Amino acid sequence: MRLVVTGAGGFLGRSLVRALLERGKLVVDGAEVEITELVACDLTSPDMAADARVRELGGDIAAPGFAATAVTAGTAAVVHLAAVVSGAAERDFDLGMRVNLDGTRALLEACRALETPPRFVFASSVAVYGGALPLVVSESTAPTPLTSYGIQKSIGELLVSDYTRRGFVDGRVLRLPTITVRGGAPNAAVTSFASDIIRDPARGTEAVCPVSPNTKVWVLSPRRGVDAFIRALELPAEAWVEGRIVALPGAAVTPGEMVEALREMAGDDTADRVRWEVDPFIDGIVSSFPVAFDTSYAEELGFEADAGAAEIVRYFLEEEDAVSDR
Amino acid sequence: MRLVVTGAGGFLGRSLVRALLERGKLVVDGAEVEITELVACDLTSPDMAADARVRELGGDIAAPGFAATAVTAGTAAVVHLAAVVSGAAERDFDLGMRVNLDGTRALLEACRALETPPRFVFASSVAVYGGALPLVVSESTAPTPLTSYGIQKSIGELLVSDYTRRGFVDGRVLRLPTITVRGGAPNAAVTSFASDIIRDPARGTEAVCPVSPNTKVWVLSPRRGVDAFIRALELPAEAWVEGRIVALPGAAVTPGEMVEALREMAGDDTADRVRWEVDPFIDGIVSSFPVAFDTSYAEELGFEADAGAAEIVRYFLEEEDAVSDR
Repeated sequence: MRLVVTGAGGFLGRSLVRALLERGKLVVDGAEVEITELVACDLTSPDMAADARVRELGGDIAAPGFAATAVTAGTAAVVHLAAVVSGAAERDFDLGMRVNLDGTRALLEACRALETPPRFVFASSVAVYGGALPLVVSESTAPTPLTSYGIQKSIGELLVSDYTRRGFVDGRVLRLPTITVRGGAPNAAVTSFASDIIRDPARGTEAVCPVSPNTKVWVLSPRRGVDAFIRALELPAEAWVEGRIVALPGAAVTPGEMVEALREMAGDDTADRVRWEVDPFIDGIVSSFPVAFDTSYAEELGFEADAGAAEIVRYFLEEEDAVSDR
Repeated sequence: MRLVVTGAGGFLGRSLVRALLERGKLVVDGAEVEITELVACDLTSPDMAADARVRELGGDIAAPGFAATAVTAGTAAVVHLAAVVSGAAERDFDLGMRVNLDGTRALLEACRALETPPRFVFASSVAVYGGALPLVVSESTAPTPLTSYGIQKSIGELLVSDYTRRGFVDGRVLRLPTITVRGGAPNAAVTSFASDIIRDPARGTEAVCPVSPNTKVWVLSPRRGVDAFIRALELPAEAWVEGRIVALPGAAVTPGEMVEALREMAGDDTADRVRWEVDPFIDGIVSSFPVAFDTSYAEELGFEADAGAAEIVRYFLEEEDAVSDR
């Protein structure tokens, strides 16, 4: 089978591509199917060509013709990770609209042109929520995004739902918690700090935490995130009995808990590299994000959360060790 | 002040334009402002040029450059009614996407190019709801549209919200109940019957009702609908304390009640022109539409519903008399 992954050069994209290549196959409708080709798309070629199954494709997802170059006849599944993230889409409205809305639409149209509707896994976000929310948020809570990124993701969800209803794709939408600890460079998301405060100290540099040690954040480890995408690819169409949008389970953790976990596992010197400089503006934004979700639908579908801050930090440190061993 | 009305040639558009011209002014932030120019846009020129204040503009809202031709410098407000309706958008996906999504976006972009953000009143619909819904639906219920029309309206709502948040427009979104009794020709909406069964008999021709006499429909008279658009134009920005999307109050009426009201006011001969031929498919679709709404936000903002079937039928018969007297 041929898979297409957009945003394959990003942190989550690289992890997902690596995991897919290591598995080598997916279970589709009860049968193991070999991954024979993986089209890895990003703005620049993602440098994964050591594996003969990978076809690298550099380009802008919203540029005319690019999506059709990626999604060629016979494509069985698409994982759409490419996006302009929250902070960047807030700073540059037109860029966010072009990539997050037009790019998603172009990709869906390329899928619609195929003879057999491919599976289409769309990375959405808890950023679709905002403002006054019920105590517990679920898929039946109205998305009221307070960022352009959240609006664009919400529009993408609606498009994937309708393209699925009409039989153009077999869509699956994952609302991701904040993925942390991210191993790559800091990004332009307002929640970037949740990775910075572990990754940077672990690598020997200082990090500034702009939110209070007690501000809760709804998070998922990259490892669980990758598992979720693979699960979303493998679940049969008939499993999605309550619609194609699912809010992934996460853990509500605080920066304080994260840094304490780091202290236990890596020592005081490492943990003390975090400076607490609360920025009321950022703390206010992050505090407005929901941290209590009814994820019963996700659990029925077999998606899993991390146990807590300690597990998330341990995953990261293990991954760092694995990389340094390579 | 200059106003722009799209879909001005449609039934609701004509009624709104007539009402605006009759009033001659709007109350904006406490002051009466004269309507000096009304740009009436539709696919073909809407034939309202008897009034010197009207500038007619025929063209496709999604065609490059059209929106900018309509929304020229100094435009104070836009009422965006133009849309491909539910049945037509379901039959022709690309047409619906082009007009309902691209057209709305083009219009918003034309507004964004103005020096002062204009008021932007967007006609949305209860069609944004579908599927499994709570007993009482409100603005905090997640839209899960089961038609492409509903998806496109939902996307329009998100765009208007974000363009408002960013200060590009001063947006107001009205989720309209089924507007009935419509005086114009039957349209391609699945709820067209709710008008047909009163209008056609009153004009001496037969009508077929494809849903059960007891199937409830959430409706609003054209008169109240026009009032709602004028109210939405006049409300100050600071009145919209719970967001820019409001579900208008309506009345839950049945075709049986409507026809009985017609019988009382226009006699047996007229009412007997309705034939009941329940189409289980259409009855099923209509039965799936929500008919119980928490409209407390709308009521706080001063929007009003009709008292019931009798009032709605009476409004229509009065309007027919008024037209035949002209």
